[in-house]
Amino acid sequence: MADLTTNTDVLRTAGAVPVGENVDGLGTEAARRRADRRWLGLELLDVADAGPAAAGDSAASLTTRAEVTMEERHLTQLQRMYGGMGLALVGALVEETAARPLRWATTQFVGSPRHGERLDLVAEVLAAGRRTSQVRVTGTVAGRVVLTGLGAAAEANPEIPGGTLPVMPAFPPPEECEPVRLRFPPSTPPGFFGLVEIRQPAGAAEPRLRFWMRFGGRPATRPAMLALVADSVPTMVMGALGNPGSGSSLDNTIRVGSAPDSEWVLVDGIPDQAADGYGHGSVRLWSPDGSLAGVGSQTAALWFHRRG
Amino acid sequence: MADLTTNTDVLRTAGAVPVGENVDGLGTEAARRRADRRWLGLELLDVADAGPAAAGDSAASLTTRAEVTMEERHLTQLQRMYGGMGLALVGALVEETAARPLRWATTQFVGSPRHGERLDLVAEVLAAGRRTSQVRVTGTVAGRVVLTGLGAAAEANPEIPGGTLPVMPAFPPPEECEPVRLRFPPSTPPGFFGLVEIRQPAGAAEPRLRFWMRFGGRPATRPAMLALVADSVPTMVMGALGNPGSGSSLDNTIRVGSAPDSEWVLVDGIPDQAADGYGHGSVRLWSPDGSLAGVGSQTAALWFHRRG
Repeated sequence: MADLTTNTDVLRTAGAVPVGENVDGLGTEAARRRADRRWLGLELLDVADAGPAAAGDSAASLTTRAEVTMEERHLTQLQRMYGGMGLALVGALVEETAARPLRWATTQFVGSPRHGERLDLVAEVLAAGRRTSQVRVTGTVAGRVVLTGLGAAAEANPEIPGGTLPVMPAFPPPEECEPVRLRFPPSTPPGFFGLVEIRQPAGAAEPRLRFWMRFGGRPATRPAMLALVADSVPTMVMGALGNPGSGSSLDNTIRVGSAPDSEWVLVDGIPDQAADGYGHGSVRLWSPDGSLAGVGSQTAALWFHRRG
Repeated sequence: MADLTTNTDVLRTAGAVPVGENVDGLGTEAARRRADRRWLGLELLDVADAGPAAAGDSAASLTTRAEVTMEERHLTQLQRMYGGMGLALVGALVEETAARPLRWATTQFVGSPRHGERLDLVAEVLAAGRRTSQVRVTGTVAGRVVLTGLGAAAEANPEIPGGTLPVMPAFPPPEECEPVRLRFPPSTPPGFFGLVEIRQPAGAAEPRLRFWMRFGGRPATRPAMLALVADSVPTMVMGALGNPGSGSSLDNTIRVGSAPDSEWVLVDGIPDQAADGYGHGSVRLWSPDGSLAGVGSQTAALWFHRRG
């Protein structure tokens, strides 16, 4: 966890290459993925042929096993696994299994791993084409399924022109914003949010639909790490409708775009709807230079904050 | 397939209850789900205890098997399974397995079932709580995985106020719009799109980012049926960036809102981005009365149309 002190913004300003990928040489994608995994605490165990291959596709039986023990950084203030962390772990494992950049991943939350529990993950490559790998992930604690994931990782296709349709909203840069003090109950550790810094313009209005966020140590714009700054939709839906509350994620989904490395990401919330007690919406995730690093979305079972 | 002639708009105008759910009595949710399944050609086979239950949760081993034979309505003009149909089938099976209304579903496309092939589906209930069921679906053709799905179905929670944040865009109603002539190659059957009607205002601009769509026979606003009108993001992304093309969906995702039954849905496209050859975005799905029936999203491998 020594790389928590790395600040890639400072390094970029100085014209240097971000560090944290200094194991296999600077800047190789494999080394960058390894640095992501190390930050996430995701330990690879083995890659194996899991059984009889499906007809005509040897990739269909390729599996990768990994594990992660739930520490403070994996948890919410409620000391259960943070949803964005669950999706980040799935995304990192999809990338590693495919050895290709993550393009999309979804995680379904079935249970809630707690502090000290070991989450065992198995990734199966369901198809591996010339460019694209489709992967399925199952996560268990003591043999019981607590999450499932789906994702695709794929090589770039240089023939298709890139472009972004929405424009980054006008918003002061993080240097001109003020830290938002996150309130934690004094009796419990803050979990992942103890690592998080959030900034907004002075006097910003509630509800908090747009803010800068970083967790330090890795660029939040990395494909697998984006999920860590994308899990705020339930609070946005409740807040935008004037209700103090949040929700329990049924899923977290990330669609990866393209952005230079940045610790800071502008979280640009688009709460859509609450219906029958279930809320959904999305967040656009902008890097400071105006690039769209990706879009997160989710559906959640909504709940009110207890009134004190 | 006799219910293809049903027109619920006409029936609603006349103050009547939509038909198509006349097996177990009008209007019961189970009968409405059955009518969805019949339209989709989804045949339930059995519900079974699939093996050793996970500790403390008898639901963990509950499975439902179903099958569907690929007919014209399941296919694109390329005679492969239509992505929106794959997600609709998964959503309908999640609903049936949980016996609760669908709230969210994702389908990952691993292979492409063809005309006449039988798609075998297995749904596993991974968790069934007081309100919410989390379900995983695997689809195979001749034993080979062609799709995987995740979804949640859940009882309403009346304690949480509902509401919709975005507002339906100003757009003429379907009665004031003109049919868009869909062009099909004369040599191939049109598949699902032979059932589809699309309408736009006269002289509407290209690219087609906003349009009315219906397929007839069932309300498109039904939770499992919404996916059938939500699979247009790849064309929108390419078109909005000025490129003639579309894409092959890696996934289709639907988040269900709340709307009265309607055959017509306003598809309101929000193309987000093309990056490295992969495109993503979403569609808001509005019923004519201004209710948000749901939001679809996807990531796709983009491609150019061949120039004739």
